[in-house]
Amino acid sequence: MARLIEYGEAPPEVRAVYEDIMATRGTDDVNNFWKALAVHPPTLARLWENVKQVMAPGALDPLTKELVYIAVSVTNNCEYCIQSHGAAARAKGMDDAMLAELLAVVGLANETNRLANGYRIPVDERFKGA
Amino acid sequence: MARLIEYGEAPPEVRAVYEDIMATRGTDDVNNFWKALAVHPPTLARLWENVKQVMAPGALDPLTKELVYIAVSVTNNCEYCIQSHGAAARAKGMDDAMLAELLAVVGLANETNRLANGYRIPVDERFKGA
Amino acid sequence: MARLIEYGEAPPEVRAVYEDIMATRGTDDVNNFWKALAVHPPTLARLWENVKQVMAPGALDPLTKELVYIAVSVTNNCEYCIQSHGAAARAKGMDDAMLAELLAVVGLANETNRLANGYRIPVDERFKGA
Amino acid sequence: MARLIEYGEAPPEVRAVYEDIMATRGTDDVNNFWKALAVHPPTLARLWENVKQVMAPGALDPLTKELVYIAVSVTNNCEYCIQSHGAAARAKGMDDAMLAELLAVVGLANETNRLANGYRIPVDERFKGA
Amino acid sequence: MARLIEYGEAPPEVRAVYEDIMATRGTDDVNNFWKALAVHPPTLARLWENVKQVMAPGALDPLTKELVYIAVSVTNNCEYCIQSHGAAARAKGMDDAMLAELLAVVGLANETNRLANGYRIPVDERFKGA
Amino acid sequence: MARLIEYGEAPPEVRAVYEDIMATRGTDDVNNFWKALAVHPPTLARLWENVKQVMAPGALDPLTKELVYIAVSVTNNCEYCIQSHGAAARAKGMDDAMLAELLAVVGLANETNRLANGYRIPVDERFKGA
Repeated sequence: MARLIEYGEAPPEVRAVYEDIMATRGTDDVNNFWKALAVHPPTLARLWENVKQVMAPGALDPLTKELVYIAVSVTNNCEYCIQSHGAAARAKGMDDAMLAELLAVVGLANETNRLANGYRIPVDERFKGA
Repeated sequence: MARLIEYGEAPPEVRAVYEDIMATRGTDDVNNFWKALAVHPPTLARLWENVKQVMAPGALDPLTKELVYIAVSVTNNCEYCIQSHGAAARAKGMDDAMLAELLAVVGLANETNRLANGYRIPVDERFKGA
Repeated sequence: MARLIEYGEAPPEVRAVYEDIMATRGTDDVNNFWKALAVHPPTLARLWENVKQVMAPGALDPLTKELVYIAVSVTNNCEYCIQSHGAAARAKGMDDAMLAELLAVVGLANETNRLANGYRIPVDERFKGA
Repeated sequence: MARLIEYGEAPPEVRAVYEDIMATRGTDDVNNFWKALAVHPPTLARLWENVKQVMAPGALDPLTKELVYIAVSVTNNCEYCIQSHGAAARAKGMDDAMLAELLAVVGLANETNRLANGYRIPVDERFKGA
Repeated sequence: MARLIEYGEAPPEVRAVYEDIMATRGTDDVNNFWKALAVHPPTLARLWENVKQVMAPGALDPLTKELVYIAVSVTNNCEYCIQSHGAAARAKGMDDAMLAELLAVVGLANETNRLANGYRIPVDERFKGA
Repeated sequence: MARLIEYGEAPPEVRAVYEDIMATRGTDDVNNFWKALAVHPPTLARLWENVKQVMAPGALDPLTKELVYIAVSVTNNCEYCIQSHGAAARAKGMDDAMLAELLAVVGLANETNRLANGYRIPVDERFKGA
């Protein structure tokens, strides 16, 4: 099980990342993912920069990004990520019906992915380059 | 490679599904996925009923559902599904910036899924039940 | 792309494995999988011993084992394995209807795997230890 | 963790599906998978129709279908599905030796899938179209 | 959950494998992986021969092989294998910094795998045949 | 298929990344991966920073990192990544015997991952926390 680095025992470069996470999210604690990555400060700083850039509002809104995150995490069976991004999506407005439809799409895509690969279906010309 | 059943050679129960697909989508042909499933008519009819129900507008809009479909298909590396749902998403409004952000989230989620599992990070109490 | 070692250029320990494969299967050539593994003779010999032991008739009959092999290969999207074990299953009696039902089960299992993981459904007490 | 809908609190359309499951299977309760899907009645009804159709006896017998289900679930690491379909396979006649051979094939297929992909082995002409 | 076969209750062919494992590793017990496989002695003997051959020092040193084993196990999310090969790697010299860099590479590779597949990037001519 | 952005048509922020890649690697061109990511300059810059940091010599040497990259890419079946990191590993000293042993470990780990998950083997107390 991961060793979790708490703020009180963290070196300055870790504290700086924790503070940026808390300020960006308006929270007074960081979740276990960051406390586990903090065993290797360059990885902590790198991942936080990635998350901040990728999950920021842009051409896709933040809730859509959380739904996509859950879709990948369910496909890969990462329990930590399903629960943490499930909570993040709830905070951004996901309700029970949206979660149910999301999981329905994820399940169906996992099914048809195997039918397409199992039958080795050739890609239609009109889809190429989309 | 899949054997593709064309409309002209299809039995009545297959033609009925093809006609419903074309009417629902406003197209004059069905794509290869359906032509391949038609080798087994009960599977063709079953999958089409699933797709019609799951991908219909509901708590999530159709474009969001296509983005989720692409996210799963990229994670599983199903080329047919990436291209067919890529085309469907384009038709529903996905532009280059949206695709780039989508793939960025998919890539990042695949990365953090492994960090969370590799470090075996315990789920924060406040995330449980989300 | 793999370098394929043909019988004529193979060292004695590779020829011995090729001969055992051909004798066991009643064929006069070995397929590309073995020709590729032959770049590393200990791996060739090891894998052939594994395949011979695992795929032999036993508590499960050889056709059932081929169907399971295809199910795994479709789930992982290994085109070589889908096609080579597809041909092996055909030779052992798999017809179109059996293939269609096999892929239907594979697709459905991939779907429900994600629903079970996505909803984090607790295992029923009566299933434990099965 | 999933919220489980018990019969007593279920709306009529959920009760109807539960009753069909119990009648079809000759049991007096439904397992947690269905109780979890019942949070979204259209998904419950849809999945049950799929399972009923796909897992019915046909070109493949019900035990073979359960073995294939386990093979996929082990490859994807879905604990719920491994245990629930493990119990179903036991009820249909799977004994310890059959389970051991099944897992041996699943393990070997997962190994050779990576060797075939890692060496990028070209598909033999005689396997194509199988 | 697996039934574990202890030395005291094991038949002779299982004891012989256990003794070879303990002698090879210089330990006075075997770990649960072997005790679980022992329910099917031919699988136990086969897997042990595989592990002994594949993990022996050769063109790659034993620690590098353990790191590769962890990389695969994290990608597939096999908790047993992450922990058992994590312990083996520690015994062969892996320290915290090496583990952190290993997981960083594993995470990044999982990310770029999806970017390469998602964009369907053509392989550069100069990489082919590497 | 990905649209590839060549240096001559690239905007200044893309050219700056290309120049850093070429300077860091001592080459006079960048490979297709970067040309494809360049459709979205922030993703290009972000990924390059990640690769530069993660793949730099550290507690693990660069060749070991390439071997781990290949192991993940083979497990996920990313052809582009297998070939590009295969070429990178060759340039850093990987020979045929090392590749063969690498793929043997990758194959075996994929096999034992499923045996451990399929039997749901409990983690030995002495492995926990490793």
